[in-house]
Amino acid sequence: MPRVQPSRGIMITIHHLHDSRSERIIWLMEELGLPYQLDFYHRVPVGGGRLAPETMAKIHPFGTAPMISDGPVVIAESGAIVDYVIHKYGNGKLSVGPQAPNYGEYLFWLHFAEGTLMSQILREFLLDRIGADAQSFPAQRLRQRNKMYFDYVEARLAAAPYFAGAEFTAADIMMVFPFTTLQKFKAIDLAPYPKLRAYLLRIAERPAYKKAMKLADGDATSKEAS
Amino acid sequence: MPRVQPSRGIMITIHHLHDSRSERIIWLMEELGLPYQLDFYHRVPVGGGRLAPETMAKIHPFGTAPMISDGPVVIAESGAIVDYVIHKYGNGKLSVGPQAPNYGEYLFWLHFAEGTLMSQILREFLLDRIGADAQSFPAQRLRQRNKMYFDYVEARLAAAPYFAGAEFTAADIMMVFPFTTLQKFKAIDLAPYPKLRAYLLRIAERPAYKKAMKLADGDATSKEAS
Repeated sequence: MPRVQPSRGIMITIHHLHDSRSERIIWLMEELGLPYQLDFYHRVPVGGGRLAPETMAKIHPFGTAPMISDGPVVIAESGAIVDYVIHKYGNGKLSVGPQAPNYGEYLFWLHFAEGTLMSQILREFLLDRIGADAQSFPAQRLRQRNKMYFDYVEARLAAAPYFAGAEFTAADIMMVFPFTTLQKFKAIDLAPYPKLRAYLLRIAERPAYKKAMKLADGDATSKEAS
Repeated sequence: MPRVQPSRGIMITIHHLHDSRSERIIWLMEELGLPYQLDFYHRVPVGGGRLAPETMAKIHPFGTAPMISDGPVVIAESGAIVDYVIHKYGNGKLSVGPQAPNYGEYLFWLHFAEGTLMSQILREFLLDRIGADAQSFPAQRLRQRNKMYFDYVEARLAAAPYFAGAEFTAADIMMVFPFTTLQKFKAIDLAPYPKLRAYLLRIAERPAYKKAMKLADGDATSKEAS
């Protein structure tokens, strides 16, 4: 099967922060076989955490990952970057079309990854970090909601091999990070979720994922895909 | 100009929770001129807050708004529902295409509304609710980040009349709620943001917005668009 080959004119730069959501964009480019430049930033210790270096704010006021440059255009926000690359440079590959029966599933997981899941997990991290009373109503409710979201993920992966259905899509690229690299910040016990664990092992076998995670974890300062 | 008229076969039900993100979906349907049924749910007092009633969990395990039914398919997540309706039933109206110069802007704001902005504001609400030390590093950093996001919104609306650029799009439908109805839960001072305030006044004049907010705030149990 021929690979989607863009014109050599395009040059997307991924401003990659180590251990961050921008690994999704490296992975996406590798799955699509698109060329890109990888600029690597290391986290710096600030206030008990590890934050993006101040140099990233020179690229975009948000100053954190993910960000890409496409010529003069700088775009932030994981979901936006994924949609942008797929529909502008990837001929829609890895997406699901509006007439497909699983269009709703695809869109749901694509947006849920950041719109709900990451937001909820980071809220739990925040309560931990400030040493909030774990028995307070908001803390208990947050834990209950998050368990419900994890159960929903597990149920989905019991029903289908990938989030959107039978095929690997960009919804998977959005959904994996919270269960893998984010775990370095605060591990969540995945033992109660065997379908999720089996799914993550399948994902880990994908050549594009392997290559992308090696690059995302490395210290190369610049790289162009073959 | 002819309105997009779907076949009468379609019947989307919006499961609308009062004072919630689902007002976006009513607004979207009114802007597109698409028929829908509106099922209205009132919030109930729980643990010092006002939550969705338990009956909503019978429709979808998340048990909260927004949710739509499209025949047997139930979809949650604001951004997913907006994409679904626009591309499945709206002929792409209110979206921006991949070849348009403002495609990146459109996608950014569409995803940023929930992926970052709502998530960040709700984190600040959470710290308030649990009575966290406002001088702690995480609380201070959160306030700084949120000011930066509001400044970024203000700068955008100084540069363009709508979030995606010259035209009103679905990015606006995603971006308005945090500055309007969400303010009922905890008011954020919008005085430092004159461009944002002027924008909200322009939005408030849109016939579809007026009609949608009246319906979203009312107590009708069922409604079909003309």
